[in-house]
Amino acid sequence: MDFEEKTLKRDIKFEGHIFTVAVDDVELPNNLGQAKRELIFHKGAVAILAVTPDDKIIIVKQYRKAIEKISYEIPAGKLEVGEHGSETEAALRELEEETGYTAALNLLYEFYTAIGFCNEKIRLYMATDLVKVPNPRPKDDDEVLEIVELGLDECLELIKTGDICDAKTIMALQYFALTVGGK
Amino acid sequence: MDFEEKTLKRDIKFEGHIFTVAVDDVELPNNLGQAKRELIFHKGAVAILAVTPDDKIIIVKQYRKAIEKISYEIPAGKLEVGEHGSETEAALRELEEETGYTAALNLLYEFYTAIGFCNEKIRLYMATDLVKVPNPRPKDDDEVLEIVELGLDECLELIKTGDICDAKTIMALQYFALTVGGK
Repeated sequence: MDFEEKTLKRDIKFEGHIFTVAVDDVELPNNLGQAKRELIFHKGAVAILAVTPDDKIIIVKQYRKAIEKISYEIPAGKLEVGEHGSETEAALRELEEETGYTAALNLLYEFYTAIGFCNEKIRLYMATDLVKVPNPRPKDDDEVLEIVELGLDECLELIKTGDICDAKTIMALQYFALTVGGK
Repeated sequence: MDFEEKTLKRDIKFEGHIFTVAVDDVELPNNLGQAKRELIFHKGAVAILAVTPDDKIIIVKQYRKAIEKISYEIPAGKLEVGEHGSETEAALRELEEETGYTAALNLLYEFYTAIGFCNEKIRLYMATDLVKVPNPRPKDDDEVLEIVELGLDECLELIKTGDICDAKTIMALQYFALTVGGK
């Protein structure tokens, strides 16, 4: 059985700062004919499970326009142009900008967030040995963030209430429960 | 500290079958001025961690155009128009179409896949008491799928090799490791 879908034509529908939208005409394998694929191309991102010496998890409270709600998430940020190959530096930058900490990083997972239509790939790191940076790099101008440090039980409670509702954060918390939290 | 971003203007950039793209002009809180938000609106989806009586996990092998690669994932599918409020039925339909099984379902999590720019919400179910349907509903015309049943260790190996690289599947496997697999 063949799986590959060959691109016959790509039609770019939108080019933004965050993502590009295309519709591809594809040739299906196994003589199944043609189909259309609506696609989002994204530069990728990093996310950080940052754990303090007393096993608290650093959580960022922020407003998310896509869902019109406040959300509690692990620190994260988009890769900027040219940052591929130096994702660890991007993760250190985001951690410093959002939380004021620097740390030792360890890659946990690389994954696609919405593989059915989007190529956004997130690299999820664990950060330990956190140290406060004296004069941390400032946040982006349009970011309004509040930082809290929570235990695993408090985070699990926020999943139940729906305040934690994003995939990367739930994934990071489950990793924590499987390893550090399960000590 | 205020967090909410008020929409001043919404500009629809693309309306597809799978998602709609908009750019919002927003008023930032705390007198920070204005910003633009690129947004994807999606109808939502369901995903199913289906576990056989001998603790194998049902995995779907398929081609994903957004990443131009074959991917191994738990069964999943988009909600169709008007399916909100009956997500469980949608999950049963997807499970039957993709795997030929019906089952007892239990909601594990609801989460946003790419909360920074997209409102796609996935409801992740656990399916147990799997029973083969005599004449299952057919797959969509443009879907080429292969079904495999794998143990947790085999799945964890596929994460390492990168064949399993999507967020919902990694989350489901972690859940399995924390509960059933950890028995």
